[in-house]
Amino acid sequence: MINQTAEYALPAMVCLAVHPGVDPISAQDISGATHVPVGYLQKILRMLAKRGLLKVTRGTGGGFLLAKEPSSISVLEVLEAINPRFQRIERCPLGIEGHTRLCSLHRMLDAELERTMRTFATTTIGDLLDGEGGVRPLCSSSGGLPISIDGVSAEGEPGAAPGGGEPESV
Amino acid sequence: MINQTAEYALPAMVCLAVHPGVDPISAQDISGATHVPVGYLQKILRMLAKRGLLKVTRGTGGGFLLAKEPSSISVLEVLEAINPRFQRIERCPLGIEGHTRLCSLHRMLDAELERTMRTFATTTIGDLLDGEGGVRPLCSSSGGLPISIDGVSAEGEPGAAPGGGEPESV
Repeated sequence: MINQTAEYALPAMVCLAVHPGVDPISAQDISGATHVPVGYLQKILRMLAKRGLLKVTRGTGGGFLLAKEPSSISVLEVLEAINPRFQRIERCPLGIEGHTRLCSLHRMLDAELERTMRTFATTTIGDLLDGEGGVRPLCSSSGGLPISIDGVSAEGEPGAAPGGGEPESV
Repeated sequence: MINQTAEYALPAMVCLAVHPGVDPISAQDISGATHVPVGYLQKILRMLAKRGLLKVTRGTGGGFLLAKEPSSISVLEVLEAINPRFQRIERCPLGIEGHTRLCSLHRMLDAELERTMRTFATTTIGDLLDGEGGVRPLCSSSGGLPISIDGVSAEGEPGAAPGGGEPESV
């Protein structure tokens, strides 16, 4: 449904939303919390910053912060920022000349896309922080501790990032 | 929503469904009708054949035929045949150890995927031949003629493939 870049961008945004504040978070720390490979993650974070969803500070202690409140950033905005192909089908994707209307196939695909995009447009990064059903933001361990940055959990308690270890390669 | 390989596989299946019969249709002819680049198309057709959706005959006059009735092939079967990533999210895609339940983000994505997959499972290639609203299968020209193979349209009338010209490159 969404590509791998999007699958990595969304947890990164949730991670930043879990840790609001004035201190930027480094790509390395976001990588440790989300298990997104750091090299790939840096490219994604730059794309998100370019689209105005993140603020970047450079140098020692530099990193990334959300540019807006989590409740003001829709999932759709994140997807559109990193995947230009995520859009409605308005014209024949096969580039058939003289085409005036979508065929049955592309109408069906577009209808599904429209429904999905509506869900993504009305779901914010803030909505994903609710931990509905007792589940924490991001995939948490059975212990229930949320992700941690620098050994301090999102709730201010000491806690290790769930799982640990090196991020899996892409 | 679906990847480019899937975007090419579905029109190819519709094309074969528009031209039922005992004579196989060559990859070149399917390419001409759907505007899918022939080299890429051949790989896709072999993947579909490997999954039992197409029959292949080799040699002069060889080509491809649907292995089942269009009404017995769901859109989902086609997508699953060519994209192993098109599946429900059952475990944390980030591979976080100790994970027991999906987080809010992945639950939301999985719910959308489940809804979309249900639509694709209940829509058959045959359904896409209906031409609902006066639109022909595949993206037709304003003249309304369906795609043609070897100068004979799907309705047995002479007609040129809409648009014409070379397939666009990937």
